Amino acid sequence: MAETTTPAPPREDGRADDELRPVRITRNWLDHAAGSVLVEFGRTRVLCAASASEGVPRWRKGSGLGWVTAEYAMLPASTHTRSDRESVKGRIGGRTHEISRLVGRSLRAVVDYRAMGENTIQLDCDVLQADGGTRTAAITGAYVALADAAASLGVSNALTDSVAAVSVGIIDGVPRLDLPYVEDVRAETDMNVVMTGAGTFVEVQGTAEGAAFTRAELDALLGLAERGCADLTRLQREALDG
Amino acid sequence: MAETTTPAPPREDGRADDELRPVRITRNWLDHAAGSVLVEFGRTRVLCAASASEGVPRWRKGSGLGWVTAEYAMLPASTHTRSDRESVKGRIGGRTHEISRLVGRSLRAVVDYRAMGENTIQLDCDVLQADGGTRTAAITGAYVALADAAASLGVSNALTDSVAAVSVGIIDGVPRLDLPYVEDVRAETDMNVVMTGAGTFVEVQGTAEGAAFTRAELDALLGLAERGCADLTRLQREALDG
Amino acid sequence: MAETTTPAPPREDGRADDELRPVRITRNWLDHAAGSVLVEFGRTRVLCAASASEGVPRWRKGSGLGWVTAEYAMLPASTHTRSDRESVKGRIGGRTHEISRLVGRSLRAVVDYRAMGENTIQLDCDVLQADGGTRTAAITGAYVALADAAASLGVSNALTDSVAAVSVGIIDGVPRLDLPYVEDVRAETDMNVVMTGAGTFVEVQGTAEGAAFTRAELDALLGLAERGCADLTRLQREALDG
Amino acid sequence: MAETTTPAPPREDGRADDELRPVRITRNWLDHAAGSVLVEFGRTRVLCAASASEGVPRWRKGSGLGWVTAEYAMLPASTHTRSDRESVKGRIGGRTHEISRLVGRSLRAVVDYRAMGENTIQLDCDVLQADGGTRTAAITGAYVALADAAASLGVSNALTDSVAAVSVGIIDGVPRLDLPYVEDVRAETDMNVVMTGAGTFVEVQGTAEGAAFTRAELDALLGLAERGCADLTRLQREALDG
Amino acid sequence: MAETTTPAPPREDGRADDELRPVRITRNWLDHAAGSVLVEFGRTRVLCAASASEGVPRWRKGSGLGWVTAEYAMLPASTHTRSDRESVKGRIGGRTHEISRLVGRSLRAVVDYRAMGENTIQLDCDVLQADGGTRTAAITGAYVALADAAASLGVSNALTDSVAAVSVGIIDGVPRLDLPYVEDVRAETDMNVVMTGAGTFVEVQGTAEGAAFTRAELDALLGLAERGCADLTRLQREALDG
Amino acid sequence: MAETTTPAPPREDGRADDELRPVRITRNWLDHAAGSVLVEFGRTRVLCAASASEGVPRWRKGSGLGWVTAEYAMLPASTHTRSDRESVKGRIGGRTHEISRLVGRSLRAVVDYRAMGENTIQLDCDVLQADGGTRTAAITGAYVALADAAASLGVSNALTDSVAAVSVGIIDGVPRLDLPYVEDVRAETDMNVVMTGAGTFVEVQGTAEGAAFTRAELDALLGLAERGCADLTRLQREALDG
Repeated sequence: MAETTTPAPPREDGRADDELRPVRITRNWLDHAAGSVLVEFGRTRVLCAASASEGVPRWRKGSGLGWVTAEYAMLPASTHTRSDRESVKGRIGGRTHEISRLVGRSLRAVVDYRAMGENTIQLDCDVLQADGGTRTAAITGAYVALADAAASLGVSNALTDSVAAVSVGIIDGVPRLDLPYVEDVRAETDMNVVMTGAGTFVEVQGTAEGAAFTRAELDALLGLAERGCADLTRLQREALDG
Repeated sequence: MAETTTPAPPREDGRADDELRPVRITRNWLDHAAGSVLVEFGRTRVLCAASASEGVPRWRKGSGLGWVTAEYAMLPASTHTRSDRESVKGRIGGRTHEISRLVGRSLRAVVDYRAMGENTIQLDCDVLQADGGTRTAAITGAYVALADAAASLGVSNALTDSVAAVSVGIIDGVPRLDLPYVEDVRAETDMNVVMTGAGTFVEVQGTAEGAAFTRAELDALLGLAERGCADLTRLQREALDG
Repeated sequence: MAETTTPAPPREDGRADDELRPVRITRNWLDHAAGSVLVEFGRTRVLCAASASEGVPRWRKGSGLGWVTAEYAMLPASTHTRSDRESVKGRIGGRTHEISRLVGRSLRAVVDYRAMGENTIQLDCDVLQADGGTRTAAITGAYVALADAAASLGVSNALTDSVAAVSVGIIDGVPRLDLPYVEDVRAETDMNVVMTGAGTFVEVQGTAEGAAFTRAELDALLGLAERGCADLTRLQREALDG
Repeated sequence: MAETTTPAPPREDGRADDELRPVRITRNWLDHAAGSVLVEFGRTRVLCAASASEGVPRWRKGSGLGWVTAEYAMLPASTHTRSDRESVKGRIGGRTHEISRLVGRSLRAVVDYRAMGENTIQLDCDVLQADGGTRTAAITGAYVALADAAASLGVSNALTDSVAAVSVGIIDGVPRLDLPYVEDVRAETDMNVVMTGAGTFVEVQGTAEGAAFTRAELDALLGLAERGCADLTRLQREALDG
Repeated sequence: MAETTTPAPPREDGRADDELRPVRITRNWLDHAAGSVLVEFGRTRVLCAASASEGVPRWRKGSGLGWVTAEYAMLPASTHTRSDRESVKGRIGGRTHEISRLVGRSLRAVVDYRAMGENTIQLDCDVLQADGGTRTAAITGAYVALADAAASLGVSNALTDSVAAVSVGIIDGVPRLDLPYVEDVRAETDMNVVMTGAGTFVEVQGTAEGAAFTRAELDALLGLAERGCADLTRLQREALDG
Repeated sequence: MAETTTPAPPREDGRADDELRPVRITRNWLDHAAGSVLVEFGRTRVLCAASASEGVPRWRKGSGLGWVTAEYAMLPASTHTRSDRESVKGRIGGRTHEISRLVGRSLRAVVDYRAMGENTIQLDCDVLQADGGTRTAAITGAYVALADAAASLGVSNALTDSVAAVSVGIIDGVPRLDLPYVEDVRAETDMNVVMTGAGTFVEVQGTAEGAAFTRAELDALLGLAERGCADLTRLQREALDG
């Protein structure tokens, strides 16, 4: 890892290895939803909508506890080459399932169900344009939509912390932060990290796409992710204060 | 129809009965698709993406003819109350099917398949926010995205005309143009009309939601639609020239 | 439209342009259903069964209102070339969905839900043989089955009028009534019109299959449909009186 | 079995225990299919259509052998209480699957695939009205439709024999032939038997609905079935000669 | 049948024609289920698990009666050539449906629902390795698992008898008991017979795979099956006593 | 983490915190598959079968490269409370999808596709009994089955290393190795780690079930996993040598 004597080539978009893409968080992008955010990580663009409703799913009725759930999906034309619509195929693909579950778990890590009362907030993260890091953008934006929806229900105290996510990976032996599509497809190792505002870990998902990675490489990636999530936490706070 | 002696109450948004909502057509809203348009009819907002690809479906191979097809869908949080995701339900609802077919037929009415050559253009119309008239906005925006995609393939001559669509309806006995949601739910009769730039009809779909309608009412609605489609045709031309 | 100096060729079956095919309405074709009709428009043969049951769907319980719904389907061997069974494919096609919804809406236009009380009538329109105009035959026959089912429930007064439907189209520039398959596939424009016994419109669905149509052509088609529906209304009345 | 000292009550419809219901076989009931039969066993009414096409399924191509397959289904209103449509439920039930397979196997027992050449005949057996014995009526009628379709392909010699089927059962301890619905629901044992014109067995499917049955009872049921199938074989021959 | 003057070749595994394969019934193969059995008929290996739960399906609530149901499935690698997973295909095949229903019916033949009380026992029969006779092994093993589950619920008296099943068939004109795969694929006639411990019949399912079979052949097969089921009944008793 | 002054309670099964459950790897458990392993981690029991076939999926034809894929599933009665069968539900759940993908990715990390040639190996991991750690047992066992299948194809050199997996977690503040169900449900943090025989990482998937975890806790868990995977690697080697 990065122990090469010849320096690695610079990133195509000129960023430093530990630098995020330009991040934009636009609140209230929709009129109907309780919270809605258009989040952009570079050219990746995800619409995160939080729908609030009274009551909880049947299996939770009478518990006094709230519920938060999430669905992730990509519009067909969001990808470089159009992908088929899952509603038309009649089944949700494994990747979609996996990311929906990840987004839900990540948000629930900062929810105090008792403080929510028996209310449900449903997050919908729809990728309008994909350029790498859609799941991490989804989590980062969804948290802000969730905060707005919680406020609309008068239960802002049900959020015990914020949550943000970023991708890291090793490209040409160099650990890098926040991979766009062109880096993502070339990454030897790819990791998504979800962290709280307090700097603790909610999810760590690392995959060797090419060669397996060493403990030292893993440690370097975790360090980058800690830095990236701290930056995103600040941007979330600014958006909510704005 | 409109034979009431007491004048009908004005429209909630202050428009004249034969006036469109503010229409906005933003081209190139996406980076990957061959053509993409964010079309807005008031608060209704539809993302229309046209993906161009070489080749045609198998049943058309070797014919020398192109193909144009369309899919329509609503994001879950686009509606006043969140609606379930069709990919999760595992089946497409009748309304979605119906509108996808309508959009496809409407666009194909102005396509010269031979001039296209064996290329396919796939339109995706995704409703980001729904406030009535989503299918007519979809058709109107999709035509512009189609024109851009045809240009990108170098087959602009494959479009023999433009196509636009508008809704009309009778509310409190008064025929009105371009219904927002609050009028749509109260309409006694609801009609969607698709027309070419030349002023001929591609589709006429009228439904009595309440009482059946007379021939005179039908004639009045058709007249309103002719006017609305003419306005939309002009706005499409401006967008494409812009 | 029809302004050609050379006269159009006569219809293959020798009918006048404004003449229906031989129509036969056979009541009580089944033993179990509350109402059942075998309706024939020429060689098109549709079995319409109305099943009556106490109670209404859950979303309507306690409202004091009844419910009427319909499903349309084609037997595999009903078409010129066998078509696959939708139950085997595991999903209902767009066309089937669309027609089922059309039949239901058309019938509901003449139903007084309050007079029905909390009862449900379910119409099943199964095409035994298809030769054009299956949806219009289905609506025309289903009304008669509905009337019998309403009588069996003792709520004949819940039907405020009758409803009938017919197809019209432009073939070789000539507007014609009640198209069989051979005309349907050649039609430049194809329109299905649903009307009440009182002569008002319930549904108008016109589609340009080839060239878009002018307002004058549209007016001519509507005129033909008015005549055809009036004839069908008379035949329905005779069947119910018979 | 039948060892009761008090005589069993007569059948509701007055038939002898070894007597078939009135059977009617109407050929050419449809215009498009290569063979079509409306078969009636009393009030049970099944439409059997045989569609012939050149070629065979992919897995059989180049073998020089033909193929025969069958699908069975019930119209929703065919039953005493309306049953849901399997296309709407999105899946075929176990009973439907089972009977479709039974009909196909039964017909294939008398087919010489080599004599057929690479042609396919697809049987569709749709129950228009159900009053017990629908699967046996379907097989009996389908054979006649198959014979007509084979003739239309010029391969009548591909049928090595005829095939017919009948139900038998034990009601109140008495073995009876050809059970209508009222007997079927009360039967302690229910058996469907498929036989060739030559009097050999193709399928025997016996089920204890209530108490398990003895070998002696089984033997008595088989005897009744042999008689019933012989009668049906004669009726099939008359229909084909007629 | 078997009237050949040249003696039939011996069975590949050296068994007598009326001899079962080595049968092994291993109880308590799982830790969680109320009853579980690994049953082996030669190389055929089926895991039968009986899950007991309080309560019955909704349509049976308040009746005071219990319920027993069964599902059968094959692991993909259980067959000679891997078969696709039905969960992945998204639908259960006809054969699986058919056998699940057969297993359930067979077990229910010896259940006294009233003695069970409102409890449910669900049998799962999963084929780990298939070498012919999987459905008969499943029934035979499932009975033992059912007995253990009934005991765990304290309702052993709800089983009025035992039930076992075996396959028989005609190979090269010779009736044989308990067919392994190599015989099964060559059988002219194939029959599965389910019997009670008392020697009465629950199910008889015979199919002519090649030529139709005579009454004499049928009688010979039934005789073999009676003997085989008697042997299996003894082995079940020994397993439950062991 | 583990900084409590009161010592943590010992594990229910008496193991040290860094000790695996008894692991058993039984090769050749099935007769038909090219490789098959029953792997046991304590009471968790997974049947791993590797089916080898010539040829590759269509999208890979002519590439000269092989393919390895995997499916994971649980038998209904494998869990403490019976779970519904996914084939019956008609769709695969998110968890199943996720684990199938994980198993496939993990194995592919040690496959040299070019050395495989155009052959496919399909792994089926079916959980017969679940007591925590089913996915890690599946990966560990599947590797051994894969090795046997590769040998049967004569391409043992296509495996560049071995792969094994283990779960780790924090229970009552104490990091522990290889969690059984009772620990898994109580874990504050749960991590699955997949490693090569050479000690590099293939997958790291950590999830905060309760409180988010610190970097120090993450480091401790990774250390435990390294130790556990090394032990499993040794056991795999012994099994393959045995």
